[in-house]
Formats: sequence, structure tokens, C-alpha cells
Amino acid sequence: MSDLKSKFLEVYSALKSELLHDPAFEFTDVSRQWVERMLDYNVPGGKLNRGLSVIDSYQLLKDGKELTDEEIFLASALGWCIEWLQAYFLVLDDIMDNSQTRRGQPCWYRLPKVGMIAVNDGIVLRNHIPRILKKHFRGKPCYVDLLDLFNESFQTACGQMIDLITTLEGEKDLSKYSIPLHHRIVQYKTAYYSFYLPDDYLDCFGHPDVIGKIGTDIEDYKCSWLVVKAMELSNEEQKKLLHENYGKEDPTSVAKVKELYNTLNLQGVFEEYESKSYEKLISSIEAHPSKAVQAVLKSFLAKIYKRQK
Amino acid sequence: MSDLKSKFLEVYSALKSELLHDPAFEFTDVSRQWVERMLDYNVPGGKLNRGLSVIDSYQLLKDGKELTDEEIFLASALGWCIEWLQAYFLVLDDIMDNSQTRRGQPCWYRLPKVGMIAVNDGIVLRNHIPRILKKHFRGKPCYVDLLDLFNESFQTACGQMIDLITTLEGEKDLSKYSIPLHHRIVQYKTAYYSFYLPDDYLDCFGHPDVIGKIGTDIEDYKCSWLVVKAMELSNEEQKKLLHENYGKEDPTSVAKVKELYNTLNLQGVFEEYESKSYEKLISSIEAHPSKAVQAVLKSFLAKIYKRQK
Repeated sequence: MSDLKSKFLEVYSALKSELLHDPAFEFTDVSRQWVERMLDYNVPGGKLNRGLSVIDSYQLLKDGKELTDEEIFLASALGWCIEWLQAYFLVLDDIMDNSQTRRGQPCWYRLPKVGMIAVNDGIVLRNHIPRILKKHFRGKPCYVDLLDLFNESFQTACGQMIDLITTLEGEKDLSKYSIPLHHRIVQYKTAYYSFYLPDDYLDCFGHPDVIGKIGTDIEDYKCSWLVVKAMELSNEEQKKLLHENYGKEDPTSVAKVKELYNTLNLQGVFEEYESKSYEKLISSIEAHPSKAVQAVLKSFLAKIYKRQK
Repeated sequence: MSDLKSKFLEVYSALKSELLHDPAFEFTDVSRQWVERMLDYNVPGGKLNRGLSVIDSYQLLKDGKELTDEEIFLASALGWCIEWLQAYFLVLDDIMDNSQTRRGQPCWYRLPKVGMIAVNDGIVLRNHIPRILKKHFRGKPCYVDLLDLFNESFQTACGQMIDLITTLEGEKDLSKYSIPLHHRIVQYKTAYYSFYLPDDYLDCFGHPDVIGKIGTDIEDYKCSWLVVKAMELSNEEQKKLLHENYGKEDPTSVAKVKELYNTLNLQGVFEEYESKSYEKLISSIEAHPSKAVQAVLKSFLAKIYKRQK
């Protein structure tokens, strides 16, 4: 494990301990154990890309001057706030999407004894963020901006709403699924707290052992990049196949949709799209006047370009 | 309807309209209609005690000087933030408690087409609060304190957590249910965003037509004031009856528990407790040096003393 990552994980332990001994709440022993288990299960198990990027970016913006221990701690605490936010979204999204697995383990709400308590656990995760900010940033000039920034995450819930309403609303009608609608969903759902990228591709073509969950976008009738592209590229007969098989639970229908994706060479279409986007982004970044900002953005881009999970 | 209440409801319409045209999110038509329906269903249908109290209190603290239109609007907006917070808790709590009705209508998540989308709707409700605050209070000296104040509502989720864990955790064991445990639950779950009071009493003895929901605390094995008091007052035989019938779904068991509550005269015990508490609170209030603060607190107390719903 990199030195940075192990330092980052130390800060997790410190923040967790503070939250478990928050003087504003008298825990019972059982509830303290519950929260600890819930945090360990849901917060630190991801790739930590978003959280680590905060330290990376701060380092880059300081033009190579070494960060003090306090600066590393504070940047890590902010990074963890993003990971807490991510955990909150995942715990609740898994309930809403009726998912089975996440990060290579059963979804939290699927555990015996958890069930719908997971809704409250989601709220608890969200509430930890202002607790962390208050403890470590109250009194600093940036405090109010940090509160505002995390409140901006409301856009994720808006994107999730369009996703859910689009997917579940009444009769199935694939012709509603278009690139602009898909763009609106991913823009709000994912882009505002991380970066734009069609996770949909990994849902279908990523390996479950690598992405840590079994994709169900086809069964769930999701407005995914793949189905939207497929509708765009299909002839009448292929469209008919999609209409008949998309959004069905049975494995034969799912297999037919995946076969069509292959026939239409969506993997190739995506790779083309990905590398074109990459070039476009690099040009935009290099047009930015600050070399430090360029470095931050390029470091971000490197984390997601050609990612496998 | 009182003049104050109708003015308050006008502000609801204004805030709703702002949220439905929030420039930070491009609604689709369907999603805008969804949010409007969700707000109308969940936000303004309660007693509005908490929200109206903000205007009342502000008026009282201004020592009778008349409020300007802007002051009324801002106090109302803050009052609505509390009602939004309340709606958020109710929408999610009803899912967690598997409830049927709320405020005289089916719980939101029970409506056809809503289901687990209600989890996201709860998040959307919570997110509206910082949107309202940002639009109307950003730039004012109190802004950061208002953000902190609404973030303090994390204590409600903590209380809800102890409630849920206590209720659902493993084998049923009534002897765990004590006044200190019950006190801890209601203190955090209800007191921090309104005021202390055993809603449990209404759950059992309130009329469904008046309280707008069918109480299920006995079936749900809730750590309620009534069962805790009953355990305290019961002889061995009555305790046995409680152990055997509390937390069972069948109407006979529920009836036996209610009959025991009557035998133990819990209604009388509660009335005694309520009037003693009232006197104690009045004495504490009258010891406060400011007459204006006294008036605010007495106005609050009058709203809840001997309430039927």
C-alpha cells in the first residue's frame, strides 16, 4: 500500500473514533458497536479515488511545497467527507435499486438484522459529514463554503430521481431513452461529486469480480449509455429485439440484449468515444493558464481513463 | 383559518415554486411534476405547530413591535425549513417502521409507483432545506449558524437508530426496556427538533381519525413509555402477560396488552405525569429573567399541553 494511502486510512480511524465518542450523543454500547460496524462495512472499502484526490490536488496546488502534518490531516478529513458521501449514496441506492452486491460483498441492507435500518444508517452517514466539518473546520474562513459545497450534493439526488422515475414510470417505452436524457441523468447523478463517465459500460462489460457487483441495468430497464447507443445504431429489426427483451428478468432476454450489443460493436464504439473524449479533455486542460490546475485535472483524468472498475 | 396560517401557507407556495425552478437543476417535466406532488403530499399536511412557532416566537421576542413583511417572510421560510425536516423524517420513518397511514392518508411510499423511490424523495426533502437557506439567508450573519442548526438534526437519526436497534435486535427481551432507555430514545429522536413528549401515549390511546394514523407500537415491540411504565407497575403475573403478548401481530394479543394498560390505569398515570410536568415547566419558565423568553416558552407549552393529536 502506498504511503499516502496508509496515512489516509489512519485518518479514517481517527475520524471514526471521534464520531463514536461524539459528546453530542450518548451512545448505548450496542448502538456504538452498530455504527462502528456500519462504517467499517460501508465507508473505506472502495477504491478511495475521490478521497485520495483531495490530498493529491492540494499537493499539486501548493506547487511542490511539502504539506505539513496538519495540512495532510485536514486534506484527508475532507477527502473522507467525500468517501462518507459516497457511502451514503451507495447504501441508499442499493435499497432503491434492489441490488444484491456492492464492492464484492452483499449490500449492507441485505445483511440479516439490517434491512430497512439501512435507511437510517444512510442518514447517519450523511450526518457525519457536518460533524467532521464542524470539528475540524469551524472557525476557519472556508467553513461556510465547505458546508455549501457538501450541500451542493443535492444534485445527485436530483439525478437519481430522474433515473428512478424514468426507469419505473408506467409502461416501458424505449423510444424515450435518448442521449440528452441519459446525459442529464449521469450529469447530475455522478458528475457533480466526482466526474463524468458512463459507469453503465462497466455494469454490462465489467467483470463482477473486478467491479465488485453484478450489473443488472438490462434487467432493471435502466436508461444506460449502452441501450441509448444501441437504439441509435439499430435497424428496425434490432430495435424490435430491444423492445422485446430489454427490461426482462429472464437470462435468455438478457443474453439476447448483450449479443446485440456485441453485434453493434458497442465495446469498440465506447473505446472510440473514450479516446476521443480523452483527447478533447487534454486539449481543454492544456488551454488552462495555471500549470498547477492543469496538473490537478490531468491527475484526475489519469485515474479514470481506461479504468476497469 | 387564522390570518397567520394563511400567510404561512402562501410562503409555502412561494418556496415550492422556487424549488421547482431551481436553476441549479434542469428538471424534466415529469420530474418537476413528481417533486410538486411529493411536496404537496408530504410537507404542508400536518398541524404546522413547529413552523408556526417560529413566527410566533420571533413576534414575541420583538416585544410586540410589528414584524415587517420581509421579517414575516423570512421567519416563515425558516418555519417551513422545520416542516420540510419533519416531512423528511416522516417519509423515511414510515418506510423503516413499515407503517400504513400518516396524517390520515396512506404513507407516501405505499402509493402505487412510489415504493422505494420514497427513499430518494426523503433525500430530496432534506436537500431542499439548504437550498431555501442559501437563497434567502446567504450573506446574512446568521447564515452559518442556520446551517449548523439544521445539521444538528443528526441527533434525530441517532435517536431513531437506538429505537430501531432496540426494537429489532435479536430475541425479544422486555426487561431491557427501562425509563432511562426510553428517555434516551425520545430525547434524541423528538426533543431536539421539537419538544419532549411521549407520542407513545397517542399511538395507543389517540383516536386514528384524530391522530391520522393507526398506532402499531404494541405490534412493533416498541420501547414505548406505556410498556416501560407497565413493566414498572406490573406484578409478576402481569409481567408474564406482557412478555407473552407484547410484540405479537394478532389482535387478541394486542387487546390483552391494551386491557392491561387499562387495568394499570396508565391513562390516569399519564395525566398525573402530564400535569406534574406542566407545573414543573411553568415554574422553570417563570424563573427565567426575560419576560419575552417566558412568553415564547409558555406559547410552546400551551401548544402541547393536553394535546389530542
